[in-house]
Amino acid sequence: MPEFQRPRGTRDFGPAEMAKRRYVEAKMRETARLFGFGEVMTPTFESTELFVARSGEGIIEELYAFEDKGNRKISLRPELTASVMRFYVNEMQNLPKPVKIFYFGNCFRYERPQAGRYREFFQLGAELIGAPSIESDAEVIALALATLKNLGLEDVVVRIGHLGVLNKFIDEFGVKKDTQIEIRRMIDKQDFESLNTLPDGATANKDVNDRLIKLIRLKGGAETIQKARELMDGGDPSLDYLADLLDRLNAYGFDNCQVDFGVARGLDYYTGMVFEIDAPSLGAEKQICGGGAYTLADLFGGQEVNSTGYAFGFDRIMLALEKSGVDVPSQNLEIYILPICDEAKIAAIKILSELRNAGISADMDLMSRNMSKAMKYANSVGAGKVIIIGEKELAEKSVTVRDMKTGEQARVLISELNDYL
Amino acid sequence: MPEFQRPRGTRDFGPAEMAKRRYVEAKMRETARLFGFGEVMTPTFESTELFVARSGEGIIEELYAFEDKGNRKISLRPELTASVMRFYVNEMQNLPKPVKIFYFGNCFRYERPQAGRYREFFQLGAELIGAPSIESDAEVIALALATLKNLGLEDVVVRIGHLGVLNKFIDEFGVKKDTQIEIRRMIDKQDFESLNTLPDGATANKDVNDRLIKLIRLKGGAETIQKARELMDGGDPSLDYLADLLDRLNAYGFDNCQVDFGVARGLDYYTGMVFEIDAPSLGAEKQICGGGAYTLADLFGGQEVNSTGYAFGFDRIMLALEKSGVDVPSQNLEIYILPICDEAKIAAIKILSELRNAGISADMDLMSRNMSKAMKYANSVGAGKVIIIGEKELAEKSVTVRDMKTGEQARVLISELNDYL
Repeated sequence: MPEFQRPRGTRDFGPAEMAKRRYVEAKMRETARLFGFGEVMTPTFESTELFVARSGEGIIEELYAFEDKGNRKISLRPELTASVMRFYVNEMQNLPKPVKIFYFGNCFRYERPQAGRYREFFQLGAELIGAPSIESDAEVIALALATLKNLGLEDVVVRIGHLGVLNKFIDEFGVKKDTQIEIRRMIDKQDFESLNTLPDGATANKDVNDRLIKLIRLKGGAETIQKARELMDGGDPSLDYLADLLDRLNAYGFDNCQVDFGVARGLDYYTGMVFEIDAPSLGAEKQICGGGAYTLADLFGGQEVNSTGYAFGFDRIMLALEKSGVDVPSQNLEIYILPICDEAKIAAIKILSELRNAGISADMDLMSRNMSKAMKYANSVGAGKVIIIGEKELAEKSVTVRDMKTGEQARVLISELNDYL
Repeated sequence: MPEFQRPRGTRDFGPAEMAKRRYVEAKMRETARLFGFGEVMTPTFESTELFVARSGEGIIEELYAFEDKGNRKISLRPELTASVMRFYVNEMQNLPKPVKIFYFGNCFRYERPQAGRYREFFQLGAELIGAPSIESDAEVIALALATLKNLGLEDVVVRIGHLGVLNKFIDEFGVKKDTQIEIRRMIDKQDFESLNTLPDGATANKDVNDRLIKLIRLKGGAETIQKARELMDGGDPSLDYLADLLDRLNAYGFDNCQVDFGVARGLDYYTGMVFEIDAPSLGAEKQICGGGAYTLADLFGGQEVNSTGYAFGFDRIMLALEKSGVDVPSQNLEIYILPICDEAKIAAIKILSELRNAGISADMDLMSRNMSKAMKYANSVGAGKVIIIGEKELAEKSVTVRDMKTGEQARVLISELNDYL
């Protein structure tokens, strides 16, 4: 028989990698719980229409889209916000506000596989629905930053922008809606060249354009807001909003948030604050989180409602933790039991079960290995201690305990084993 | 806009349900870790061929099978053993034996949705690969039972059979292979009527048939093995094997395992021991686990190797826990903070962050609610205590703490709050 290969662009995860991933997942879940966010889970596939409603027809090219046996058009989810907001509209609109939810799940996109980009990948995100903007925005950014802090990933940069600022400039161009979208895309790509030669006759207003380019290059702490005021003839409510947001984040304990007016988040549905988090250790593909304020419920047939949310790229976070040298606790086996005669096997099983019942991870030799091979195996799985049971030990109701680090051995009565360990 | 509905036969899980599911998942994962099993994860879809190789062409009808944009035939996985063994053959064959792995994931089948059966459902299972049968079988059944015990689900029945016993009878019929498969299916369905009127002229041997029917009705403790010996002219190696297995499970601390010669597990690839676990509280759909000894690696292009594995139906376990009244710990919010004037908001955020940093789940009013509405909200989310901060409190650097169960209130200095809580 030929071997079967896993599908292109997908991954298998072995035990060492999975232990790390589950640890990180649990830490993120625990942080969300501390913040009063509740987890939700939605189906892996949805009607293709849902994703088109959120992201436009263009998304179909990137979807794993297919027809089921009932000729329904369904797609594997390319991201989770659409599914979660669909769930919100279906079942959570009448809950007391705010609704604070988070999710962790796999997503799919059909694209050429390349380094760090997979056809099945993992997202973790949160949505805060139904509270005033400023409170939501602060709480949601704080959750994202606390999550990274609790993971020990402190070498990150959060960049916060506001579409209100960009939109004001774009309004001043007086261009058509199509061109506005085009301009937004240029800003998002920091494509200053194209911005200088706008289509639709908009190049006429060179002053606006120059100021816009200066603005989207502005990055830094609270003092950046003052510089923006100068470019905007004295100010704009969005700038006051950002100043207030930074104050609140300060109170949350995050005093190093940056303002970056170049954050435009490509998507058309954000309505105000937008933010991105980078892990500089990742180099060119450094963005690990993106989010902002949006309304989406109304697009899905629900009542319009303020929402703020974000999504972490879980795979990038795993990579950033590795690059930053952040350790996750070892899941190595604590005890390996070696019965060295047939008579010892049942006794070994009993000890094995008692250790496990006491919350100690333990395994025993199932291969009837001799001493030296068993020690080699115990080493290869990183066992902390080996318990040896032979005829002598059996006769004395004892075992030999060998510390695999120090090499020290001790004879211990079975009745005193738990205390000894 | 019309509302979007989730696909037929799938589910959305809200926060209360998800908290329970994640708790159960974590308990199961922890038990596997104590047993020295390592978690693996494989892609959500695989080549359709893989599932056909495991289960035959018939499986295609039940698959979410489709072609991707590269015209590759892929399917959402209907179960996880095929994927995990594919991974084993690809990357784990050269690891020291035994390889002990477990998995948790979602699976998909296209079938008419009905009570308790979903198109997307969840399985948790384990495989022990490369150790002698008796050691593997005992360790794997022990893991399944320890998992349920650690969940507090003790009202279960494990029924263990052996295909060696059934095959010996079927051999005695002297029928063709097709008929053998047919007979196996009748046994699995406990269809005694059809067994009496076998196709292929096999009815000739009425004595064998009568004894077979008696045998597959045999159920009970170790004494059942003795009764089986009488039906089998003195015995069979498979019976000795089962006696040994029960002794070992006894040493593991599981002294109530039953023998049930009627367990045939429908599938054609099991090679020896087969077992099922029932949760009687579930009524007709009571089976929560199925497994046995098999070889599958060779079918996927690898070396032939002894394996024993099982899969839990995770959704059925959730149902059984509920029916049995097993509680999972509450994830209710511990503290809800209510700033009752604008000036208190920043102070509230600081206290909020300190509590969360100390590992206390805390939330604050983001809606500028008045006292009575805020208390109603705090009640609705099950908050343990409410912290109130108004002008008086601010002036005294204190807060008012209200216990939501007793209704008692106390004024506490902010500097002493952590200790007080």
